[in-house]
Amino acid sequence: MTAIVTSGRLTFPDARDLLPELAGYISIPSVSRDSDPQVMRRAAEWLRDQLGFAGARLDETAGNPIVRADWLGVPGAPTILVYGHYDVQPPGSLAEWNSPPFEMTTDGDVIRGRGVTDDKGPVFIVLKLAQAFLAQEGGLPLNVKFLFEGEEEIGSPNLADYLRAHADELAADLVVSADGAMWRPTEPSVSVASKGLVSLSVVVEGAATDLHSGRFGGTVANPVHQLAALLASLHDADGRVAVDGFYEGVHELSDARKAEIEAVAFDEEAYRTDLGVPALFGEAGLSTLERLWERPTLEVNGVEAGGKYTVIPRRAVAHLSCRLVHEQCPDAVFEAIDRHLRERAHPAVTVTVHPDPGGVPAYRVDGDHPSIVCAVAALAEVYPGQEVLRAVIAGTLPATALFEEVLDAKTLFFSFSTADEKLHAPNEFLRIRRIDEGLRAWEVLWRELARALPRGAS
Amino acid sequence: MTAIVTSGRLTFPDARDLLPELAGYISIPSVSRDSDPQVMRRAAEWLRDQLGFAGARLDETAGNPIVRADWLGVPGAPTILVYGHYDVQPPGSLAEWNSPPFEMTTDGDVIRGRGVTDDKGPVFIVLKLAQAFLAQEGGLPLNVKFLFEGEEEIGSPNLADYLRAHADELAADLVVSADGAMWRPTEPSVSVASKGLVSLSVVVEGAATDLHSGRFGGTVANPVHQLAALLASLHDADGRVAVDGFYEGVHELSDARKAEIEAVAFDEEAYRTDLGVPALFGEAGLSTLERLWERPTLEVNGVEAGGKYTVIPRRAVAHLSCRLVHEQCPDAVFEAIDRHLRERAHPAVTVTVHPDPGGVPAYRVDGDHPSIVCAVAALAEVYPGQEVLRAVIAGTLPATALFEEVLDAKTLFFSFSTADEKLHAPNEFLRIRRIDEGLRAWEVLWRELARALPRGAS
Repeated sequence: MTAIVTSGRLTFPDARDLLPELAGYISIPSVSRDSDPQVMRRAAEWLRDQLGFAGARLDETAGNPIVRADWLGVPGAPTILVYGHYDVQPPGSLAEWNSPPFEMTTDGDVIRGRGVTDDKGPVFIVLKLAQAFLAQEGGLPLNVKFLFEGEEEIGSPNLADYLRAHADELAADLVVSADGAMWRPTEPSVSVASKGLVSLSVVVEGAATDLHSGRFGGTVANPVHQLAALLASLHDADGRVAVDGFYEGVHELSDARKAEIEAVAFDEEAYRTDLGVPALFGEAGLSTLERLWERPTLEVNGVEAGGKYTVIPRRAVAHLSCRLVHEQCPDAVFEAIDRHLRERAHPAVTVTVHPDPGGVPAYRVDGDHPSIVCAVAALAEVYPGQEVLRAVIAGTLPATALFEEVLDAKTLFFSFSTADEKLHAPNEFLRIRRIDEGLRAWEVLWRELARALPRGAS
Repeated sequence: MTAIVTSGRLTFPDARDLLPELAGYISIPSVSRDSDPQVMRRAAEWLRDQLGFAGARLDETAGNPIVRADWLGVPGAPTILVYGHYDVQPPGSLAEWNSPPFEMTTDGDVIRGRGVTDDKGPVFIVLKLAQAFLAQEGGLPLNVKFLFEGEEEIGSPNLADYLRAHADELAADLVVSADGAMWRPTEPSVSVASKGLVSLSVVVEGAATDLHSGRFGGTVANPVHQLAALLASLHDADGRVAVDGFYEGVHELSDARKAEIEAVAFDEEAYRTDLGVPALFGEAGLSTLERLWERPTLEVNGVEAGGKYTVIPRRAVAHLSCRLVHEQCPDAVFEAIDRHLRERAHPAVTVTVHPDPGGVPAYRVDGDHPSIVCAVAALAEVYPGQEVLRAVIAGTLPATALFEEVLDAKTLFFSFSTADEKLHAPNEFLRIRRIDEGLRAWEVLWRELARALPRGAS
């Protein structure tokens, strides 16, 4: 199928004229990590008030309320579910902020404040877009359900249960997420995949207590040595994972995908310098972007044992996580690593492997899926002459797996946040022009989806 | 040379009659780790008052005072320097003590309290012995210099300077330490060696900050993986150190020493069970005691990096220490490890190796050195029918190296503390019978040394 690009017809105020209203939303310190329930509710109510045209309400959960609204005024048209969140990360050290985190300030071409880019600003764009449609055309071009949660920054502990309990009511042909971030500010991109995640801990135990390294050295196995040997066995010299079965479900890169990645402008030396590493590193025969986007990884995230004392520690622990791609199965990956470690465990120590809950498979959508085609069309309209990249979110987005499982719907990430805008860090910012661009792109996206998205669930 | 065993001729009160006086010393909480200078001085003064017969005085240092006294009433006889310390370890958690740490209590066959075995009780024995000699014979059988410091438990930071400044005045034919502990309570033993020590840290650094394991995984080397590979390269599969040059200066065990060790009653299975390890472990072809006493070790005492988060940590650190034997040179061992690690450092990370100050060579004394022969004779007199073991202190005693370097004198460890008496731990105790045995053994030792110790320095 082919999408026909349609110019937007709405008119929008200049983004700078919208900022005072956004500033009111930013001023609500809705930090879910150390939540004051009343403050969280104020943020939810702010959203509800914006969605009055769609009969918005707050649905209670075991945690913070979920904001829900439906505008279903085009019978027979496709239905999308717009997702976002109203909670934010803690501000961290106030001393590192150039301006108070909960007072939105304009600084040249950007606005600054906690939540401006993750995720209050990107959600604000959708709200203003919907209101513009209603004001200027009397309705939206397709049916839209809205779902904004208040616990995304703490791992969405109540979202799965909520989705399952309301699955029928939330049925949609596509989820469009106003959360997520574009890869780089220099070119428009749509995400065609995100990586999965499986994590686990390895515990190596020796004696019942820490032992004096003199009084007992040479007579017992040191758990740190045994752990080091196990960790060293996980990779080959060039960083390829050496665990039997780890790569099951991983495809070879097609020539087409190789060419597509090859075409992305990417300055390896600038990347290396930015990171401050002596050299880049990874599997032989693959480019840096190929490794980053298309290959699964196994990283040891932390190790703990003993200290700077002359002991043989009784216990050594490592925390591992894997980013998965394609059809890798989280459970099978855990089992492969568990088997690898057990087979190599020395009998003079006790080795146990503990899976963390919450394994997530990788997510992907075909590059010619209608949602991607529509998104590319929308971005092409707003960024004329620039190629739209098909990028990969090398992080993990558990919500995608959840929406696919519970609602049987794919998720399109359509955020005007960019990955460099200090998400979760001090001085979080959003480029003001992204509000203009976002409004125009969302308008075209909705028109395109209204025309091209096959109806299934709704 | 051969020593002739001479029966003791002094009479001593029952040890239990001496306990009230010792209790007064134990009640002074002379914890050097968090020292109240007035309290430390009270402990030093307690010792000074006991040594009035030898003109005792307090010598000031940059830290706690050193107690010094000389009884040099036998011109032409050998001179020994008796060493001990009046400071104690912190009591730790009071909840773990069965009785208040600074109230000495009798509990069946033992006394309990902080310092009873390390080192107030063992020093008390020497004081009572000297006083008995003076009271009953009008003098000591040889010349004795006394040196008791108040900073042993914090690494004797001022002892080396003091010894150097007073080297002429402290000249002696032998140091006899009332500090140190016998190996086991079941058989008498003298220590013919202690292990040396060298320690260092290895730091592996990658990027300038911790990196998101998704957004950067697969493009840079993980410092934890690199550290694990380095640590795993330090040993062979059976625990033998795989560092070129590490074993330089280490001798093969002689058949005689092998036979001597073989003769020591040692229950491997009880040892394993006490430690709670699934199996004992170490270099092939050597027994557990051979490895413990005669072989150098390299242990990783601790590792630190990242945590249970999905990051690639910017930095991974390991703390290593080696126990040395025979003629191993601490500096050469450090250099061998440093070279080993640098040669294997991957260019995608930065590896630095940092030596700790204070390397100590191993200490040993020939089994037929006069001090050992006299000590064996003394122990044989007090423990008739029991073989006196020639044991190794697998820990490190920096004072021995110091006395040898500054005073050119060997050190004999002659303590009636035993290694199982909860030194440094809650419920520290001393077997009461050891006071009786110690008084008798010290008497014989002094008589034997008076006769058999060659005069050199004094």
